[in-house]
Amino acid sequence: MTDLSPLLTDLYQLTMMQGYFLSDLHRQQATFDLYFRRLPFEGGYAVWAGLEPMLDWLQGLHFAEADLDYLASLGQFRPEFLAALREWRFSCEVTAFPEGSVVFPHEPLLTVRGPLWEAQLVETALLNTLNFQTLVATKAARCVLAAQAGGGTVLEFGARRAQGPNGAVSAARAAFVGGAVGTSNLEAGRQFGIPVSGTHAHAWVESFPTELDAFRAYAEFYPDSTTLLLDTVDTLGSGLPNALTVAAELRAKGHELGGVRVDSGDLAYLSRVIRERLDAAGFPDVKIVVSNDLSESVISGVIAEGGRVDVYGVGTQLATAGGPGGGALGGVYKLAELNGRPRMKLTGDPAKSSLPGTKAVWRGLDHDHFAWDVLTLGDAPHEGLRVSDPTNPLRSARLTSRLHWRPARDLVMSGGQRTRPAEALPALQARAREELARLAPETRRLLNPHVYRVSLAPEVSELRDRLAQELRGH
Amino acid sequence: MTDLSPLLTDLYQLTMMQGYFLSDLHRQQATFDLYFRRLPFEGGYAVWAGLEPMLDWLQGLHFAEADLDYLASLGQFRPEFLAALREWRFSCEVTAFPEGSVVFPHEPLLTVRGPLWEAQLVETALLNTLNFQTLVATKAARCVLAAQAGGGTVLEFGARRAQGPNGAVSAARAAFVGGAVGTSNLEAGRQFGIPVSGTHAHAWVESFPTELDAFRAYAEFYPDSTTLLLDTVDTLGSGLPNALTVAAELRAKGHELGGVRVDSGDLAYLSRVIRERLDAAGFPDVKIVVSNDLSESVISGVIAEGGRVDVYGVGTQLATAGGPGGGALGGVYKLAELNGRPRMKLTGDPAKSSLPGTKAVWRGLDHDHFAWDVLTLGDAPHEGLRVSDPTNPLRSARLTSRLHWRPARDLVMSGGQRTRPAEALPALQARAREELARLAPETRRLLNPHVYRVSLAPEVSELRDRLAQELRGH
Repeated sequence: MTDLSPLLTDLYQLTMMQGYFLSDLHRQQATFDLYFRRLPFEGGYAVWAGLEPMLDWLQGLHFAEADLDYLASLGQFRPEFLAALREWRFSCEVTAFPEGSVVFPHEPLLTVRGPLWEAQLVETALLNTLNFQTLVATKAARCVLAAQAGGGTVLEFGARRAQGPNGAVSAARAAFVGGAVGTSNLEAGRQFGIPVSGTHAHAWVESFPTELDAFRAYAEFYPDSTTLLLDTVDTLGSGLPNALTVAAELRAKGHELGGVRVDSGDLAYLSRVIRERLDAAGFPDVKIVVSNDLSESVISGVIAEGGRVDVYGVGTQLATAGGPGGGALGGVYKLAELNGRPRMKLTGDPAKSSLPGTKAVWRGLDHDHFAWDVLTLGDAPHEGLRVSDPTNPLRSARLTSRLHWRPARDLVMSGGQRTRPAEALPALQARAREELARLAPETRRLLNPHVYRVSLAPEVSELRDRLAQELRGH
Repeated sequence: MTDLSPLLTDLYQLTMMQGYFLSDLHRQQATFDLYFRRLPFEGGYAVWAGLEPMLDWLQGLHFAEADLDYLASLGQFRPEFLAALREWRFSCEVTAFPEGSVVFPHEPLLTVRGPLWEAQLVETALLNTLNFQTLVATKAARCVLAAQAGGGTVLEFGARRAQGPNGAVSAARAAFVGGAVGTSNLEAGRQFGIPVSGTHAHAWVESFPTELDAFRAYAEFYPDSTTLLLDTVDTLGSGLPNALTVAAELRAKGHELGGVRVDSGDLAYLSRVIRERLDAAGFPDVKIVVSNDLSESVISGVIAEGGRVDVYGVGTQLATAGGPGGGALGGVYKLAELNGRPRMKLTGDPAKSSLPGTKAVWRGLDHDHFAWDVLTLGDAPHEGLRVSDPTNPLRSARLTSRLHWRPARDLVMSGGQRTRPAEALPALQARAREELARLAPETRRLLNPHVYRVSLAPEVSELRDRLAQELRGH
């Protein structure tokens, strides 16, 4: 399966690996941190996703003969290196936030420790999957929180606009972690057991002599799971009356119409009128589904305008994680330690310098709420500790007494093997839901959220400053 | 292989298929058109990509037992339908622009004709792949044309930010069609034979005692293909002098340094200074490679500011087709004819109504230049014909005499089989390059391009108007 290919990487990872191997530096013990510097969508949090598939990938990683043949064909790799790759396995230790956690900028989300040539190879694939799935899970959480404000839920409908066939499958998975209740994508349903759902298309209506014929046919075949699309001809003038006719016919036969869908027009106005007429006709349980270029801000707008929507089918914007601050998450993977010595990449901009050393991430809880994350070199932070902002050393504060600290990350791989069984997708979705509920409402806001505090313990900032001074002096 | 799964589709395609099957409507002859309504990136053209992989997919499409088992598990599909799916094959006729063509809004890019339940199933996968690859090929063409203005070329470097592992592979393929000369992605190199290239990372430099040690080691192992990354410590103060040392050492051994790369800072200024110093030191052939959040507008800016760049490594923006008007192409797939009768989807907005009937696309050439595309119901347009704008019937014009007309599309599948062998990727890239050269320079502009004319022959607009009147009266 291509998904498991070690060649899902950049050429330079392999040329560097060969270089390390030929220099006999490949077994140096390296520590790499994966993190991002800016939250997507101008929001207040991110939902960490993609970890479980990457642990599967790491655990099974090896070079098959076909992979080695391709590398040999490039003319840059020596026989002794290719022979070593044949035996190559991933034996590193991996520490990470459990999938579904809410996470923030500058904290190491995942740390790989082990031989340099192993930790280096996996950079590209880790970034690819974790960047994208975290981005989509975050987008989904935003849409779901927006929908919940009006009692609605979210379905992922984006396969036709997603980036690459498996981009659509990954997006459906990540959207589920972020809180979507299902997907239209059958392949995602099969691969991950995500509930699949759908309605019918305009072409269905156009393939019958009349809209009523089309509705009746669909209801006949799916008497207990019919959602009728109302806007092929005229939503309120034709679609809704025909749907009411079919709803009554279904009831006479002992079934109930599941829902109606509107894919165009003023969704707030139409859903309100449709709700009133369905209720008045005795169908208060028929769900209203809407679609058409939805996003978290459109959903909020529909609710603010009095829309009465049960299910939002979100397509393009969810599957491609579009909108302001979307499209790509800028996660990076940086060397933090080599052979026990801290390492950092210095840049002119302190916000872009990496944090050296092997760090622990502690999450401070105020009763049940997440209040403060602190990076240390190991031990839990303590009351009164003066901690500083990762990008602005001038901003510092003392930790208050009421916080209860717990480690935010787990050892998830040791010796290249999982330390515990894979977590099932519904458990990841539940974790995301629980953790989002522990954020302050102001941090969950769609726009202008309060910034969640992530700080450096003095030992981390001092190490960074000392190393920066050494590098500048060098 | 997942890529070939018939389940890369929305659930509703299958529930509709079963409905057609149970209604005995599944063998009705349907015609669907795939097209988009708006050019991406606020540009003047799109580069059509993704066709060849989709023809492979269509030709091999069938339901395997595992697919049928999954569908059966959903509890919505009847045994007689699942038995019919076991025998199901794609037998339609497909007409399309050859891959690599430049294309425009409202023209049917691909038309599927055949049994309704076949033509319906493939909608989601066709849209997914053709939307995304066309989007990326177009983005690549824009970057390549921008780079060419300064004599540079483009490499695709985006795997770590692409959407889904195979999104990265698809993006590398499409970028190559659009004119990128290579990719960093090994899996794309293997699958499609795209030239792979790369340099080294900052971590390479950090893994050696000094930058010079790191450069020397890399040059030792890759004496004929070394590109050195200059900005780990200090681009002009350390990276460049060390690179010059290594360039001289390589030359003494009969080799030449390939290039230097800069990944941060003022790329226009740095590339200019680096070019001067390389030239002055006797290394005029060492290439300058730049990267760091590049896009077509950043490339144009670097050139406008006097930058001297040979190769632009474009990552996130290319692999995710980001930027204004990017992220997703809104291609749609609409029923145009059923059992010989034209069909259309009427909407309140005439720009969103589909075009009924089986149409031909004719491209009018003025000498060697593409001048005008016209949609007819079959025959070539002729001099003096009054044609109209697809979205605004009030805008019409007469075709001038100097145009020479040729059909823009080919029959690419008949009876579900390719009518000709697959075209190789370099041929698609060459077509895109040639066709882009036939556009007016004003249409190729990055910003505010001239709008290329796409018009409807009177027979098409009259058919649409007649059908719209019938539907409204209905």
